[in-house]
Amino acid sequence: MRFLLFIFLLSAGTLEAQIPVDTLASMIKDVYRKVYTEELSYQWLTTLCKDVGHRLSGSPQAEKAVEWGKKTMDTFGLDAVYLQPVIVPHWVRGDKEEVSMKTKGAGTVPLKALALGNSVGTGKKGVQAEVIEVQSIDELKAMPDEKVKGKIVFFNRPLDKGLTNTFASYGGAADQRYSGPKAAGEKGAIAAVVRSLSTRKDDYPHTGSTFYSDTTVNIPAVAVSTNDADVLTKAVRAGKTEVFIRTSCEMLPDVQSYNVIGEIKGTEYPDQFIIVGGHLDSWDVGEGANDDGAGVVQSMETLYRLKKMGYQPKHSIRCVLYMNEENGLKGGKEYARLAKEKNEYHLAAIETDAGAGAAQSFSCTAGEGVVVEKHLGYLNPYVTTLLGPYDIELQTGGGGADIGPLKPSVGLLIGLRPESARYFDYHHSNIDVLENVHPRELASGTAAIVSMILLLDQYGIGNE
Amino acid sequence: MRFLLFIFLLSAGTLEAQIPVDTLASMIKDVYRKVYTEELSYQWLTTLCKDVGHRLSGSPQAEKAVEWGKKTMDTFGLDAVYLQPVIVPHWVRGDKEEVSMKTKGAGTVPLKALALGNSVGTGKKGVQAEVIEVQSIDELKAMPDEKVKGKIVFFNRPLDKGLTNTFASYGGAADQRYSGPKAAGEKGAIAAVVRSLSTRKDDYPHTGSTFYSDTTVNIPAVAVSTNDADVLTKAVRAGKTEVFIRTSCEMLPDVQSYNVIGEIKGTEYPDQFIIVGGHLDSWDVGEGANDDGAGVVQSMETLYRLKKMGYQPKHSIRCVLYMNEENGLKGGKEYARLAKEKNEYHLAAIETDAGAGAAQSFSCTAGEGVVVEKHLGYLNPYVTTLLGPYDIELQTGGGGADIGPLKPSVGLLIGLRPESARYFDYHHSNIDVLENVHPRELASGTAAIVSMILLLDQYGIGNE
Repeated sequence: MRFLLFIFLLSAGTLEAQIPVDTLASMIKDVYRKVYTEELSYQWLTTLCKDVGHRLSGSPQAEKAVEWGKKTMDTFGLDAVYLQPVIVPHWVRGDKEEVSMKTKGAGTVPLKALALGNSVGTGKKGVQAEVIEVQSIDELKAMPDEKVKGKIVFFNRPLDKGLTNTFASYGGAADQRYSGPKAAGEKGAIAAVVRSLSTRKDDYPHTGSTFYSDTTVNIPAVAVSTNDADVLTKAVRAGKTEVFIRTSCEMLPDVQSYNVIGEIKGTEYPDQFIIVGGHLDSWDVGEGANDDGAGVVQSMETLYRLKKMGYQPKHSIRCVLYMNEENGLKGGKEYARLAKEKNEYHLAAIETDAGAGAAQSFSCTAGEGVVVEKHLGYLNPYVTTLLGPYDIELQTGGGGADIGPLKPSVGLLIGLRPESARYFDYHHSNIDVLENVHPRELASGTAAIVSMILLLDQYGIGNE
Repeated sequence: MRFLLFIFLLSAGTLEAQIPVDTLASMIKDVYRKVYTEELSYQWLTTLCKDVGHRLSGSPQAEKAVEWGKKTMDTFGLDAVYLQPVIVPHWVRGDKEEVSMKTKGAGTVPLKALALGNSVGTGKKGVQAEVIEVQSIDELKAMPDEKVKGKIVFFNRPLDKGLTNTFASYGGAADQRYSGPKAAGEKGAIAAVVRSLSTRKDDYPHTGSTFYSDTTVNIPAVAVSTNDADVLTKAVRAGKTEVFIRTSCEMLPDVQSYNVIGEIKGTEYPDQFIIVGGHLDSWDVGEGANDDGAGVVQSMETLYRLKKMGYQPKHSIRCVLYMNEENGLKGGKEYARLAKEKNEYHLAAIETDAGAGAAQSFSCTAGEGVVVEKHLGYLNPYVTTLLGPYDIELQTGGGGADIGPLKPSVGLLIGLRPESARYFDYHHSNIDVLENVHPRELASGTAAIVSMILLLDQYGIGNE
């Protein structure tokens, strides 16, 4: 009843050139049916995970992913499919990775670990030193330098499981991985060990970027599984504990890579863009299924659906598969740089990079100098009517890393927000594989994005 | 902002004896934090799945589950924990189960199958006959009897994947399992094969109840996996195909079992009840983790939390663990019969029997002769304020099988509705195991139920 009233009110106010809300509601119903029945996103994700595999920037698989993305979109009959050159970093893990704990009581105990992305290796001999454990970078900084010098710093603050959204839990602990090794190096430590950023107790280490500054010495850094972090803290609290680390990772010279872009030209505002994208690169473990294979195939299917249904958008619609989100964001930055250079206005930029869980909402941030509430006030009745039946709502919040650089020349930055319970179980680990994606949950994101784009294209964002 | 306004408005209207809405919001926040951090539901589910195992009515494991439920609730410090005797059917699968397809071209091909619950066995020699495939009971009924006589009827209508809610997909196909074998028997068929009620293509057969009438001959009935249903239909369409079925299942005499009930006495309305429950029995395959171990432990933790936080409810609160939902509903019926006999008014009955997915909403039906919208109009502002932050909303819809018999003497029947994508992948099959439950998704249901009961107990349902 509530929905019907909205439909009436919204329809009464629409211009002739717009598709009436009730017609769009039928079109969206058909989109959901087709997306759920055909499971194309899942089919493509199967190929990306199993035939291409993990695909860190600079790797042969990353180039294979670029080729696959372009070749697949070439079959959609879009107005254009092209590669946008991007220079990306080329970090490699190497073939040696060994971390173990040494105590008087227990002898040598191997720890399940992965070198952190961007980190330097230890050299062939490895490094070994006594471990000091801290719960935060602040705790480390408050220590006298001589207590840290020559030691291995162990950052062990767990994710807060008491929060219902795991992205908030992650956000509250991730500084240890991003900035912990740098802070430890500045205090004279010789290496850093970070507790994996997962809400679950298990045996899978989770990698991810760490960042150094140019002015301090870079020290080797690894993540240990949450179970082994518990083993290590128990040993450290019981008495003097040393850790041995040998890694052979290194940063090689930058290489040429690409964003992959597919486009349908707009009929009324061809120079205004609505874009949707995910990142084509992944970490060099697992298959990058949730992060961000899911976002890649959802974005691709969005353009496939719009074309297949014969929809003629008012605005130009792009699918952008960004390269190098994980360890440099070069793709997102280059896309934004070129958009600015070509003076392209982006009405809305949608990012899907929060996993393949069941879609719950879109989180929105307005372009520079605009309060997002203005847009939400305009959009909410449409979203309630058109996406409410599928339990999708709007909220305020971040759009995503890759679309962030567009902020100066965008109407709305929009992030797809799936149910988050499972995401950080898999994130950046060997178990981010196809088997940990459900085809129907993946489909729920695809259908939500197609519907959101239809809505944005027809009714705009309320700032005209 | 919207929430704050509601809090003000609602608080202004509350009676002195009620906990103010903003205070209740803090209490609920604390409930969520504790439920997510401690993961008690998951701990208990681990015991139920791994130490008790599957537990069909009448089995030794069902009795073990009763003991475990009582023993565990005995530790909560409730006002009462007791067993409510129920006479239940005792169907057993036996140790022989063999289904295979025989064609001229391919010879004998084994099919993955499970006898349907309540069905009769084939006898030691088994049965073999030509297969005729139908898409519906209506299609079967329209056939001349002589075409069906002596044959094996294969019901092969798949679940409609195009619907976003798998319960709707299931509801649209389940008549084939419930009533197909009976209809086939009435037409003279000697056995029935039913396509498993799953949205997924895989190798797991899904059992479940089938029902006969007393006046017709009962024929053996099995479910085949969705993959093998596809194998079978391909063969049938290619030419004459026979199926061989040997099952040793049988219905034994009824046995004594129990509902398990825990109770906290109300301070203001001790004779009015708010209850929450799930069913303790499960099918005799897998571990009954999603169906309905999840509902059992969520209901138990609800009473644990209320007691542990020192909450003194106005109404009496009960956790009811029903016996025999799967193949008889004797527990739910007996609970309702005794409630009527004792003249107990139930303000609200909550059921959690829709799997361990992330909680999305509560679906509500009013008691006999009342329109549910009246209650929803009253409750919605409270739910928006108190449960909106956790993405939980109210909707109209069924409460659940076990609480259905309470309809004549209840205010509201309420069903917890979790995200449904994965539920029917596991339902009634060998893969309904603990490993297919996520602790945080399970916790989301527990926390939602505790919060809903606090809200109902404080503010009622608006019919006073």
